[in-house]
Amino acid sequence: MTLDIGVLGYRFMGKAHSNAIARLPMFFPDAPEVNREVLVGRDEEALSNAADRLGFSRTTTDPSEAIESVDAFYNLGPNFVHPEYSIEALEAGVPVFCEKPLAPTVGEAEEMAEAAREAGVPNGCAFNYRFVPAIRYAKSLIESDELGEIHHVRGRYLQDWLVDPEAPWAWRLDEELAGSGALGDLGAHTIDLARFLVGGEAGEISEVSGQLRTFTDERPTEDGETREVTVDDAYLATAQFEGGAVGSFEATRNATGHKNDHTIEIEGSKGSLKFSLERLNELEVLREGSRGFETVLVTDPDDPYIEHWWPPGHVIGWEHTFVHENYEFLSAVAEAGEFEPSFEDGLATQRVLAAIQESDASGERVSLD
Amino acid sequence: MTLDIGVLGYRFMGKAHSNAIARLPMFFPDAPEVNREVLVGRDEEALSNAADRLGFSRTTTDPSEAIESVDAFYNLGPNFVHPEYSIEALEAGVPVFCEKPLAPTVGEAEEMAEAAREAGVPNGCAFNYRFVPAIRYAKSLIESDELGEIHHVRGRYLQDWLVDPEAPWAWRLDEELAGSGALGDLGAHTIDLARFLVGGEAGEISEVSGQLRTFTDERPTEDGETREVTVDDAYLATAQFEGGAVGSFEATRNATGHKNDHTIEIEGSKGSLKFSLERLNELEVLREGSRGFETVLVTDPDDPYIEHWWPPGHVIGWEHTFVHENYEFLSAVAEAGEFEPSFEDGLATQRVLAAIQESDASGERVSLD
Amino acid sequence: MTLDIGVLGYRFMGKAHSNAIARLPMFFPDAPEVNREVLVGRDEEALSNAADRLGFSRTTTDPSEAIESVDAFYNLGPNFVHPEYSIEALEAGVPVFCEKPLAPTVGEAEEMAEAAREAGVPNGCAFNYRFVPAIRYAKSLIESDELGEIHHVRGRYLQDWLVDPEAPWAWRLDEELAGSGALGDLGAHTIDLARFLVGGEAGEISEVSGQLRTFTDERPTEDGETREVTVDDAYLATAQFEGGAVGSFEATRNATGHKNDHTIEIEGSKGSLKFSLERLNELEVLREGSRGFETVLVTDPDDPYIEHWWPPGHVIGWEHTFVHENYEFLSAVAEAGEFEPSFEDGLATQRVLAAIQESDASGERVSLD
Amino acid sequence: MTLDIGVLGYRFMGKAHSNAIARLPMFFPDAPEVNREVLVGRDEEALSNAADRLGFSRTTTDPSEAIESVDAFYNLGPNFVHPEYSIEALEAGVPVFCEKPLAPTVGEAEEMAEAAREAGVPNGCAFNYRFVPAIRYAKSLIESDELGEIHHVRGRYLQDWLVDPEAPWAWRLDEELAGSGALGDLGAHTIDLARFLVGGEAGEISEVSGQLRTFTDERPTEDGETREVTVDDAYLATAQFEGGAVGSFEATRNATGHKNDHTIEIEGSKGSLKFSLERLNELEVLREGSRGFETVLVTDPDDPYIEHWWPPGHVIGWEHTFVHENYEFLSAVAEAGEFEPSFEDGLATQRVLAAIQESDASGERVSLD
Repeated sequence: MTLDIGVLGYRFMGKAHSNAIARLPMFFPDAPEVNREVLVGRDEEALSNAADRLGFSRTTTDPSEAIESVDAFYNLGPNFVHPEYSIEALEAGVPVFCEKPLAPTVGEAEEMAEAAREAGVPNGCAFNYRFVPAIRYAKSLIESDELGEIHHVRGRYLQDWLVDPEAPWAWRLDEELAGSGALGDLGAHTIDLARFLVGGEAGEISEVSGQLRTFTDERPTEDGETREVTVDDAYLATAQFEGGAVGSFEATRNATGHKNDHTIEIEGSKGSLKFSLERLNELEVLREGSRGFETVLVTDPDDPYIEHWWPPGHVIGWEHTFVHENYEFLSAVAEAGEFEPSFEDGLATQRVLAAIQESDASGERVSLD
Repeated sequence: MTLDIGVLGYRFMGKAHSNAIARLPMFFPDAPEVNREVLVGRDEEALSNAADRLGFSRTTTDPSEAIESVDAFYNLGPNFVHPEYSIEALEAGVPVFCEKPLAPTVGEAEEMAEAAREAGVPNGCAFNYRFVPAIRYAKSLIESDELGEIHHVRGRYLQDWLVDPEAPWAWRLDEELAGSGALGDLGAHTIDLARFLVGGEAGEISEVSGQLRTFTDERPTEDGETREVTVDDAYLATAQFEGGAVGSFEATRNATGHKNDHTIEIEGSKGSLKFSLERLNELEVLREGSRGFETVLVTDPDDPYIEHWWPPGHVIGWEHTFVHENYEFLSAVAEAGEFEPSFEDGLATQRVLAAIQESDASGERVSLD
Repeated sequence: MTLDIGVLGYRFMGKAHSNAIARLPMFFPDAPEVNREVLVGRDEEALSNAADRLGFSRTTTDPSEAIESVDAFYNLGPNFVHPEYSIEALEAGVPVFCEKPLAPTVGEAEEMAEAAREAGVPNGCAFNYRFVPAIRYAKSLIESDELGEIHHVRGRYLQDWLVDPEAPWAWRLDEELAGSGALGDLGAHTIDLARFLVGGEAGEISEVSGQLRTFTDERPTEDGETREVTVDDAYLATAQFEGGAVGSFEATRNATGHKNDHTIEIEGSKGSLKFSLERLNELEVLREGSRGFETVLVTDPDDPYIEHWWPPGHVIGWEHTFVHENYEFLSAVAEAGEFEPSFEDGLATQRVLAAIQESDASGERVSLD
Repeated sequence: MTLDIGVLGYRFMGKAHSNAIARLPMFFPDAPEVNREVLVGRDEEALSNAADRLGFSRTTTDPSEAIESVDAFYNLGPNFVHPEYSIEALEAGVPVFCEKPLAPTVGEAEEMAEAAREAGVPNGCAFNYRFVPAIRYAKSLIESDELGEIHHVRGRYLQDWLVDPEAPWAWRLDEELAGSGALGDLGAHTIDLARFLVGGEAGEISEVSGQLRTFTDERPTEDGETREVTVDDAYLATAQFEGGAVGSFEATRNATGHKNDHTIEIEGSKGSLKFSLERLNELEVLREGSRGFETVLVTDPDDPYIEHWWPPGHVIGWEHTFVHENYEFLSAVAEAGEFEPSFEDGLATQRVLAAIQESDASGERVSLD
């Protein structure tokens, strides 16, 4: 069976997923065969060029038409596009893979998760960092109780592309279109990773105090005007987990000198972990009985996904996480199986983001239940 | 002129300060001459042994008697001892050097600062990390605007000596005696460093949301019983600075694998800094126009205090911060000059700690004014 | 025009190059179109499976037949296969891309370089580390005199896959088949990088003292016997460059805990560099006037090859060096242009390797001229 | 009993040892009592000032007079002063502690070692890096077979204070006065550490190939003239150990950006180690069964010498190695015991240095036996 897929979005995420799908046959020979059937967008010329380069059979400017003709639908557009077409696909019984954050608002995310539940087809929220081998390895250590009871979770995501106040306005800076700023774009990744890694041991996040900050209130547009920035440049939060662990979270697009510095640190009663996305092949592990953090290069044949790639020490890159993610999602589609992170996971993260926003507005700690 | 000094406390801090004073003549020949006149404590035998080893002329179990006979009084006892004898000394016109946090409660700290203001003699709160050469160098970079407008301050202090639930009860775990736990013991250092480094540019901390956590509720005592732990094992806070910067703070004694990991990171519109106490000779600096963080070994002859020590790359240790601190304090005493950090600084930090505690209790953001 | 290519070898290197070629259309749209025409090997079944997975139109067990039918020939077999078929292809006017080291012996390398000179078609020796963006960036810094006069070059390549004396015998351990051990397999990369980076400023290596070491003299074979190891497990060398710089080189397959640790350090009169393959997106740079090494993440859009990939901080992997290398080689083939590193470069490195072997045998420093 | 000691030399090393001795009572209460009796030098005024600051009772310009009146003699003068007064003291039955390298030439070192053997009193060569806690800990790991059979030793010592060709001439740059340059000054430390760490397991160095290099042939003097540099700015060597391990050694004073970067790496059949002097509280350890190097902060109470100092994570500095060294030497003097590293150790290292020089001159590998 060959799966026909339709993809909405042909820029950064469109390229990342198309590449991932294109690489499956050589490296994951047991993946289902995939036909990049149709690429969806609005600008016909740009779309046509992209389809050519990304290996799609045809293009359309009508998402509904695409949805009708495919076995799986990738919703990689701006956040505000996520709800409508994801729900439409699900209602048509078409599996959906949607970029993160799941939706601009928690209300929309709830509708999407509801649609997913009713559809009963594979649905995924594209938290690709779950598919970093070092992160999978970290999870296996936590699951096998190498860390003991979880005490601390620390996650931060630092970038610097908005430090310059003259950096241009973009859809990501508009609350209507994006929902939130660094919170949804970067924080969603961090919250999801925290849930993925310690959810089984520490439970869900049960309370948060949050703070948002916008450093630059308006930015230039292409037409020489300025436009208001209506989302956060940075968020900070402290959190309580059901099981008693505490968490500290932060993301910013104003961290001068940090390009893509997504860091997770976890400390338990027996051991600890550190991970940084800029060195994504490495995991620092403190085991019971050892005296310091071990710098593990997670590139051995029995490390997650590594047997598909290269010998030890021949490091992989950021894009490989998309290959793993697509392998899992498309396998689930082919086998009518389950995929995680699902829309349910996307919603759970969205609820935390919303609570952070609510806490920022009210100045009060917010409980999730 | 020789300064006679009296020191209350002869364990960890007593040793650290006595050593510092003893080293001044060889390395800081322009420091005032100091006579370690009297060591104050309760256990006469232990006190006498300590006086011998630490080079004191005599001992007493009566702090008041000591205060009367010295040119400067070091209050290095447990936190609950800080207010009474510090105030007594100040009222007698004797300069006081007091360990941190200044007092168990902000109320007592206010009384101490008031006494210091009225006394008009040098008074110091022992935030020794201000005297790390790399931290002084960091401050000079910030003052000369190398970082531009400050956006982010991130401070955390991770230790692991209370991870073991069988670690014994001690005075530091009692609210009456210590005021707070990791918050006052470790967090006080972090808040003071933040104030020291960015206070001039970002202003004071104006708002905080705080969260405390005690992982182990009771601990064994020497007599085979258990005793309640009434302070925090960890605190987390987010903060707002007057000038618009945001801060994230945390300390814990339950961070498995971290021994004395006090980290400060600051990001500004033009540059950034990172510092870690476990590598205290190093500062990581991101300058305007450069592409990455420079790892600077702050051991050059023109670095703060270094000309007194060794050639470049011959690293100094934790204890050297006490030598610098004592040099500055004793010079201020000899010259009837001013010393920073003063009781005023101790109080300012205490107010932030109190606000964090209040926020933890109320679940609401707390404003400082 | 579409280039038909033939590839001899379908294991590690065959997969790495096939993948690279397959990825060109999406990421390097101006690369020539390539048809993976024929895959060459001896074991028909394995070959057929590989051809399927690696995207080749057909297979053959006759290299000569393949050579006749292609526009470029990739010689990715074991070292002992390099000379015969590379020369055959060149004599047929077919561009050749040959894995490193160029040949088992310097005599064969000379014949190959001679054949390349006479053929006048593009020829390449696959020193892929020249195509790491951080290495290209390093070269640009050296060329623009950021390091000044070169004083020191330090290169080492540490792996550990032969530490276990029970690791099985393989062709790489036989002098007839491989020429040498760690020297040719790993040292060839190091010597080539040194030549690439400082050749223009420091000149060629003019003298070496070398030492080889075999830690395990025989190893088990698949049939339960043992077979002699006739190559080195490790080499060490000191070197003199024409321009006065000195070099220290080493490689080993017995460095417990090091997986693929290829490190180059260069110090000049004004600045210095450090690079490590296990963190291949990073370059440490010490610039004139700065105080420490800057850790540069070489993933900005204007860094070599990066505009073809992902945004800043979205790191690439080891395999990307093959994409860049194939892009350059195939472009040279399409345009009848020149490619570096060429067979001439392969020969230059081989001469250094041979001098190290000669020095090891004689105990005397060996001059190259 | 109080030991009267005499010290020749009052600059860098004089200060380092005087400080160390002064600190013993507070931190090593079981050390013998020491009276800094007499400081020896040539410039009476500078000498008198130094004696004051370093705590000596008196001064003399006559080493022989000092030797007669003390219980131990510290020879901390320039290298060319080492032989005469060390031998004089030993012949007078006075224990001697001599700075490294033991002598300018191996011939003189042999005479010194012979004098030490005949005197039968404690004698020490000041290889202070043997007294770094992390190095002692490393040795304990090697002795308890955590590394298995030693395969590789790698040592390099990088400084940059002679990169500037205008850096002034000094006695260290004259062969008559210093014996050699970076080789004796820095290389002696590295060779001694290698012997200390792996001598028991890998045996002595049995063969070397060496290369010396002088980058700047003459340098300005204080009187505005220039003077010839007759020693090496850098050395490189490869070595063979009796037990089959191989070694790579290097030192330079021209490594731009490296201040005091003394690095030792050791790889064995079961585990590996890395140490760097600029982070002297840390040891990187790869243990059997672990996946990566553990970064161990060697500051726990049961680490070598640490119980005398501060709690875990409160790092020590370079100077502390002198305290440990003096504690051991003076204890040996008080108890008429033995001290290592002795003159015998100084001589063993000197033989390796001489073999490196000989190999540089002859171009041939040199055997030591």
